[in-house]
Amino acid sequence: MKEKKFSLGVWAFSPCGDRFLTIGYRPEMSLEKVIREVATIDDLSGVEVGYPGDVNENNLDYFREIIKETGLVVSMVGVDLTGDRKWQNGSLSSTNPEIRKEAVETCRSGIEVAKQLGCDLFNIWLGQDGYDYPFQSNYPKAWDLLVDSIKEVAKTGVKVCLEYKPKEPRTHSYIATVGKALLIAHETGKSNVGVTIDVGHALAAYESMAESAVLCMRDGRLFHLHLNDNYRLWDDDMIVGSVHTIEYLELIYWLEKIGYDGWYSLDIYPYRENPLEASRESIEMLKTLSKLLDKIGRKNLEKAIEEGNPAKIQKLLREKILQ
Amino acid sequence: MKEKKFSLGVWAFSPCGDRFLTIGYRPEMSLEKVIREVATIDDLSGVEVGYPGDVNENNLDYFREIIKETGLVVSMVGVDLTGDRKWQNGSLSSTNPEIRKEAVETCRSGIEVAKQLGCDLFNIWLGQDGYDYPFQSNYPKAWDLLVDSIKEVAKTGVKVCLEYKPKEPRTHSYIATVGKALLIAHETGKSNVGVTIDVGHALAAYESMAESAVLCMRDGRLFHLHLNDNYRLWDDDMIVGSVHTIEYLELIYWLEKIGYDGWYSLDIYPYRENPLEASRESIEMLKTLSKLLDKIGRKNLEKAIEEGNPAKIQKLLREKILQ
Amino acid sequence: MKEKKFSLGVWAFSPCGDRFLTIGYRPEMSLEKVIREVATIDDLSGVEVGYPGDVNENNLDYFREIIKETGLVVSMVGVDLTGDRKWQNGSLSSTNPEIRKEAVETCRSGIEVAKQLGCDLFNIWLGQDGYDYPFQSNYPKAWDLLVDSIKEVAKTGVKVCLEYKPKEPRTHSYIATVGKALLIAHETGKSNVGVTIDVGHALAAYESMAESAVLCMRDGRLFHLHLNDNYRLWDDDMIVGSVHTIEYLELIYWLEKIGYDGWYSLDIYPYRENPLEASRESIEMLKTLSKLLDKIGRKNLEKAIEEGNPAKIQKLLREKILQ
Amino acid sequence: MKEKKFSLGVWAFSPCGDRFLTIGYRPEMSLEKVIREVATIDDLSGVEVGYPGDVNENNLDYFREIIKETGLVVSMVGVDLTGDRKWQNGSLSSTNPEIRKEAVETCRSGIEVAKQLGCDLFNIWLGQDGYDYPFQSNYPKAWDLLVDSIKEVAKTGVKVCLEYKPKEPRTHSYIATVGKALLIAHETGKSNVGVTIDVGHALAAYESMAESAVLCMRDGRLFHLHLNDNYRLWDDDMIVGSVHTIEYLELIYWLEKIGYDGWYSLDIYPYRENPLEASRESIEMLKTLSKLLDKIGRKNLEKAIEEGNPAKIQKLLREKILQ
Repeated sequence: MKEKKFSLGVWAFSPCGDRFLTIGYRPEMSLEKVIREVATIDDLSGVEVGYPGDVNENNLDYFREIIKETGLVVSMVGVDLTGDRKWQNGSLSSTNPEIRKEAVETCRSGIEVAKQLGCDLFNIWLGQDGYDYPFQSNYPKAWDLLVDSIKEVAKTGVKVCLEYKPKEPRTHSYIATVGKALLIAHETGKSNVGVTIDVGHALAAYESMAESAVLCMRDGRLFHLHLNDNYRLWDDDMIVGSVHTIEYLELIYWLEKIGYDGWYSLDIYPYRENPLEASRESIEMLKTLSKLLDKIGRKNLEKAIEEGNPAKIQKLLREKILQ
Repeated sequence: MKEKKFSLGVWAFSPCGDRFLTIGYRPEMSLEKVIREVATIDDLSGVEVGYPGDVNENNLDYFREIIKETGLVVSMVGVDLTGDRKWQNGSLSSTNPEIRKEAVETCRSGIEVAKQLGCDLFNIWLGQDGYDYPFQSNYPKAWDLLVDSIKEVAKTGVKVCLEYKPKEPRTHSYIATVGKALLIAHETGKSNVGVTIDVGHALAAYESMAESAVLCMRDGRLFHLHLNDNYRLWDDDMIVGSVHTIEYLELIYWLEKIGYDGWYSLDIYPYRENPLEASRESIEMLKTLSKLLDKIGRKNLEKAIEEGNPAKIQKLLREKILQ
Repeated sequence: MKEKKFSLGVWAFSPCGDRFLTIGYRPEMSLEKVIREVATIDDLSGVEVGYPGDVNENNLDYFREIIKETGLVVSMVGVDLTGDRKWQNGSLSSTNPEIRKEAVETCRSGIEVAKQLGCDLFNIWLGQDGYDYPFQSNYPKAWDLLVDSIKEVAKTGVKVCLEYKPKEPRTHSYIATVGKALLIAHETGKSNVGVTIDVGHALAAYESMAESAVLCMRDGRLFHLHLNDNYRLWDDDMIVGSVHTIEYLELIYWLEKIGYDGWYSLDIYPYRENPLEASRESIEMLKTLSKLLDKIGRKNLEKAIEEGNPAKIQKLLREKILQ
Repeated sequence: MKEKKFSLGVWAFSPCGDRFLTIGYRPEMSLEKVIREVATIDDLSGVEVGYPGDVNENNLDYFREIIKETGLVVSMVGVDLTGDRKWQNGSLSSTNPEIRKEAVETCRSGIEVAKQLGCDLFNIWLGQDGYDYPFQSNYPKAWDLLVDSIKEVAKTGVKVCLEYKPKEPRTHSYIATVGKALLIAHETGKSNVGVTIDVGHALAAYESMAESAVLCMRDGRLFHLHLNDNYRLWDDDMIVGSVHTIEYLELIYWLEKIGYDGWYSLDIYPYRENPLEASRESIEMLKTLSKLLDKIGRKNLEKAIEEGNPAKIQKLLREKILQ
């Protein structure tokens, strides 16, 4: 089995504000300090950053220097088209051509920064592109604009990763499910448009994390993973494996089986937890789950899946793992 | 505005059993009696039936006779690959080649019956094709088989309508969302594979009914509608408009706007209600909603959507409808 | 640690019909055969039966004989006020005095049968007492009638166990959550009215299984448990521990801690699984989880809970269980 | 019918930040400006404020002056035990005695301020009192402490209003449902402890808004209402009636029927909407719904509810409202 590459999104170390405590649950930390803390995590080799909030044209050299010092690599650059008031009614799907143009430009600039950081994965999560109320969206127009913008961004040639999410901050996002993300990728006609599966978003969309990974991979479009956990109804962004142990094990099994060789990247948001501890434990859990597959035996699992008998499957898992 | 064609699925008149009262909430009625009752509903011109449960090679002539007498037409024939024990572990996606072959054959026979009834819409809802437990499905294999089978059925040339549903009776269906249904349609490479939107399934998948209709139509694949209502978490199959008035109004607005000219077909399951009353009221509600759009003014709505201001939209709706 | 008493509801061995396959997923088995199969399950000592469907005045002697032969005991008798058409609009809360009276009488007769079987636990799950549509229920009247009926039943002196459930078969049940069940118990002013926690119903109500158990116990009213698993949105009645391993472990921890000494009774509904295998595996899982608490060390858990640090808790669980 | 008293929570006019845009969707406005804007809303006579964020010992005189000038009254003072880092692991249920004591003191001070403002309703919504992870809470201890603290606060004699909510910001709140809120009120043994129903929280708990109101009123404990709307899965805090028209109508019907004479107070959070427009439209919708009850005829509704036939109920509503 090839070694897994672990990474994390630096926002785990932010104050993690929410709408009731907007200043966040702990003091802000400088990006440099964050990177240095992250670098202490065993077996973690990548960091994921946001453009332009974390890294941009102004601090690029400085940031590259720190990264270099720590021996980490940039696993992914994600564009932030959510956290500025100007995007509040949409960005890449905005019916305002100025806004839409600016959103596409922001992607282009972010991609440039990614390239400068030696990174070929570019994440697009569109928090504000959606609608809240009935009769608020001109759906056909919005979808046309959205696809056009993504086509435009895809011309840059980097791996464009569409991260779907059913809701939040809008009550409904356009790119809501694995199916919709893949549809857009197809419609662009470009092989460099793929999907980031945030497993928490998949759970909140009542998807099986494993099936969604398989669907993207089947299509050559599983570009990236965001890992966390939740209670299936909201994007709680909890420590990996804290709730859904067995489904996580199944996910890892299938990722290995279908030959996923991208990043295993944490996207957690530890409001009240120490981010370093939460990140470390998440990575340790991922490694443990992988070892458990050895212990169970992948051949045994393969046979059990072929038979498809849930009582026998559970017996196998229980006897090999829990006893 | 073109006249709408209304239809209903005859299972509304079944005893409507559930897992606690399997014999159902009322006595069984003969199909002939059902058709004659349905024919009394104002403005309803179509009936939707299941193959082989309702109509099959043996009762075809007899059934055609009744239909003819009543002046109704068959709006759609749907294949039942759910309600027989042999399909319990899957039909078109079954890993058992015998079962899969029989499932494809059943579709072919059903399509033959549909043609004999002058009907070119064939519905495929796959209740048993999915999984219940983690590690139970060989996802890549199942998806390959599923798509192959649908390609096979599509060769018949009729309009093959994929009806998606997130769950029930399996805890997870393969064809779960509008995105997945469209993905399969694309993968077949056939323009005669499209989608039946059951609006209750869409709501249970946290979709906007209107957006899902637009997405299918945008792709030329909105072939059919199943109308009912629910509380957004389960397929309650309630009377149309009993819960979601405004979202229903939005749906009708967009269906008209995008030029949907197919059936408005009821798929309700009135366990404790009189099926005739429930069906009549559902049709009346659909007609009322359509008239309300006249009252509000489609131009006014168009402008309101263009502006996208929820308070103004609600003011418009409230003043024109509720006052 | 005191030995746990394991039991199961015999309906696990029924054909397990649903609304699409009302005859069920396998042939019917005689109650005698079911009991004999159940008796082969290691460490299981109780069976839970329904009145009047499973056991009633007519087959009581015969049933008692079989039970005696097998060495099992009757852990609980539950009244079926759901599976007959006459209850379809409500039973103990019915606004029809005849129906309500009959429902109370049915409880009394069921309690008599329970006594004859040496069983002092009587379960009341009210599947039909609720409402489906807005404006359908006269809430104040229904609640008054419901509480009155339960007071009436409570006079018999047996332990009356209210099993709450948010929905199904009605879209809304009156006794929907742990809070509502306890409220009714209080309102009766009787200490022999308590709660059956069906953990699947608790999960579907977005409750923590453990917290709900604690709340009932705190009040001296945790009378019985129904054990199964699900995906948190519906009463899937799956094999115990098949989805929520960690939350199950937490439940067992707290049940032991608060001194619950009642039954650990399976309420599973294995549509497509072999019921004997599914039951066995559920019992084995419960025993395994209990042993895992030994392995982790209850003192260690106590300390971890006191500290309340999720990353440390997970580290403890991971290192002690998964490695 | 007695005139309704309308009010709103001033946070509707805040920047409405969320975790992605913590500075909020619009610039901050001074409390004075907010009050003056609120005072322009037709038929609104009350404002609801938070202690100590909005009003406190330092700005009390100044605030009272503004209120007096505008002719408004303070409908309710709510304590903020959520939006300060010190409460992040709990307030009234905190296992840290210092924190808990400070939380009780904060309530006492808030109640003093409320009295100074001539207001006898004091709201307690405990956003941070709950848990996020399995094994994180010592449930029995937390519940004991929580009830003790509320008893302590209740000694002040004002109407203490417990506002329940299933989740957010914690993944699980202790006071999660109407049943739990009423249980606590009972346990205090005080008649001045009651409930604030936030209808959005009720919907997110899969409650019927009307049934929950009836349950509280039945017990003499329906002290206050927070009005908004959502999609039933999250506290979207939308404009009143924007999604659930019929269920809102049912709520108003029952509130009038059971003689609720408290405030109809808006708790909306219009991220991207103009707060004045959103508030105005919410009040207008409430007034319109009330007038619709006149139009339908309360006697007609009473009869329809008595009959309990959903198709007839819908026919009545449709014919009287929509045609």
